[in-house]
Amino acid sequence: MSTPDPTGLAPGAVLGILGGGQLARMMALAAADLGVRAHIFAPEPDSPAFDVAARHTIGDYEDEAALARFADAVDVVTYEFENVPAATAAFLAARTPLHPGARALGLTQDRLNEKTFVAGLGLAVAPFRAVDSLADLEAAVGALGRPSILKTRRFGYDGKGQVKIAAETELSEAYEAIGHFPAILEGFVPFSREVSVVAARGIDGAFAAFDLCENEHRDHILAFTRVPARVSAPAALAAGEAARKIGAALGYVGVFAVEMFVVGESTDETVIVNEIAPRVHNSGHWTSEGAQTSQFHQHVRAVCGFPLGSAARRGRIEMENLIGDAGLRWRDLLAEPGAHLHLYGKRDARPGRKMGHVTRISPEAG
Amino acid sequence: MSTPDPTGLAPGAVLGILGGGQLARMMALAAADLGVRAHIFAPEPDSPAFDVAARHTIGDYEDEAALARFADAVDVVTYEFENVPAATAAFLAARTPLHPGARALGLTQDRLNEKTFVAGLGLAVAPFRAVDSLADLEAAVGALGRPSILKTRRFGYDGKGQVKIAAETELSEAYEAIGHFPAILEGFVPFSREVSVVAARGIDGAFAAFDLCENEHRDHILAFTRVPARVSAPAALAAGEAARKIGAALGYVGVFAVEMFVVGESTDETVIVNEIAPRVHNSGHWTSEGAQTSQFHQHVRAVCGFPLGSAARRGRIEMENLIGDAGLRWRDLLAEPGAHLHLYGKRDARPGRKMGHVTRISPEAG
Repeated sequence: MSTPDPTGLAPGAVLGILGGGQLARMMALAAADLGVRAHIFAPEPDSPAFDVAARHTIGDYEDEAALARFADAVDVVTYEFENVPAATAAFLAARTPLHPGARALGLTQDRLNEKTFVAGLGLAVAPFRAVDSLADLEAAVGALGRPSILKTRRFGYDGKGQVKIAAETELSEAYEAIGHFPAILEGFVPFSREVSVVAARGIDGAFAAFDLCENEHRDHILAFTRVPARVSAPAALAAGEAARKIGAALGYVGVFAVEMFVVGESTDETVIVNEIAPRVHNSGHWTSEGAQTSQFHQHVRAVCGFPLGSAARRGRIEMENLIGDAGLRWRDLLAEPGAHLHLYGKRDARPGRKMGHVTRISPEAG
Repeated sequence: MSTPDPTGLAPGAVLGILGGGQLARMMALAAADLGVRAHIFAPEPDSPAFDVAARHTIGDYEDEAALARFADAVDVVTYEFENVPAATAAFLAARTPLHPGARALGLTQDRLNEKTFVAGLGLAVAPFRAVDSLADLEAAVGALGRPSILKTRRFGYDGKGQVKIAAETELSEAYEAIGHFPAILEGFVPFSREVSVVAARGIDGAFAAFDLCENEHRDHILAFTRVPARVSAPAALAAGEAARKIGAALGYVGVFAVEMFVVGESTDETVIVNEIAPRVHNSGHWTSEGAQTSQFHQHVRAVCGFPLGSAARRGRIEMENLIGDAGLRWRDLLAEPGAHLHLYGKRDARPGRKMGHVTRISPEAG
């Protein structure tokens, strides 16, 4: 068993990763590059990350015997998804270093707590109200108006667990639609763009942010990321500072993403924090070729206590997600000059499933 | 079992790799990036490549039952070392596509056959004579003079199996030193630099060479590669053309390296072919960051029948091998701005053992 608070591991260490999808897979590949061995823990027998890991455990996140063996076999634990059960995180953290820590996980699992935390740092967020009943919802819509968005506090991703409150929406139906779960109503933000900061914080408090990403979603799933984002320099600076503040307040260790909305125009342009993802992030996939250090290498460096690498960008970037059947374009993409293809080794190309991505880099405009 | 002559596989295919060292490891990492699963076959139980492969077999290269199971489990076989036994190659090639093919393997395993083949293509090589007895050696030294170099025809690498014939060398002792094996005497070449072409040839005959590499050896082991090599444009062009000719004559599929000596000066500068390596090559490691497509990705593309990628270079490159204790510098190297560190996950840092490498890229001189 490892010491609970490492000041730094060395190559040869074993990195435990909860989750076996493409993020875990790309973390394991980066770990290998640094001589760090990956041990994946995931419930699905055909997890894509298993194929590139030194070791894997097929187990449920509630299986304490399996978790205990896993904790004993690794030097540090991280994860690829923010919905790691709190009990699982606590169980592991008692046995081995867990990065990012339980506080970051707990906060980001609950939209209400997250928004309250971010607002408490003096950062702009959309107006919001807690909703625990239909009466709460009626009052909240009264206060924030329409359109607005009703979201479950927990376990939402890629547009799941949320419903738009439009002019004609029946509130009882909307509340029904999200399953009467504890929820939050968020006021409408008339944003011009969606952007994200992908950044890392080291065990020593060092901070390194990649350049601001501009994200285009389709059907609530990230379709394209372009870097640099087309925002004013002051707004981009404010975005980076918001991420730095959030990372420091959480005592965060590892890579994280802060999704933001760009609002206002010209000299009034600014950012509003929407959501924190305590993990490597789809909008940072371009860093594999587009930055001096990829987000995956950076995350491994951070959670192992290694020095952070440079986040410097090279060129203008477009990252395109390959969703569902888009992966079938692989041969054309391999033949496309300048395109960098990454496939995740998933067997079935289900609709909406992320099968891979492609990154295109063009020279910086003179 | 696969068809013997594929026109191309698809992501999801299984790439069999003979050998479990760092070259196999980096091939497996590249394969994963393209959605191709790696199955490593190697005799050593703690092979570094096992840690990043979907599957591995621990077996001897003479174990036909294990080889047959391996061949049945993969879609194509490649290898990381040129000393694959001919019987092993033939056994596998009868069951599954083998790239590069048996002809390339056979020729490059024998220095005499290799030199004869290269000379037969009209390419310059050092003067050489076959040596099968002490009398042969005496006659050969009479013809080629001193200094010259006596090398075993087979199984030499990193300076092993060779001895310099200096002014004072007793020929009987030299012949004894190489174990009386079938040998070749090579005349001395007064070269100014050692260079290599790392190139790929596709199943369709497409050819793509990386820029000419300049190599610095210490104790017969590659210490540094710098790109571009400091040679005249015509000599660099001739080097690339020599590689193209060799690849075509072999009907080669995959990445290979041609090591060459630069001789002559100014407008007389030219290259002499020294050795062909039918595999990814240490002098091509810089391509992971320094080229549009890495040699490992390129090799996977070629042997799977995928389109080759661009070999375009970005910046001026220095690759430094980390040999033996040099791997202990990992923390400083991680902290060095602009350095890209790769560690191979080897447990023991024995003297002379390649533990990793670091690549540094600086902007192209204006």
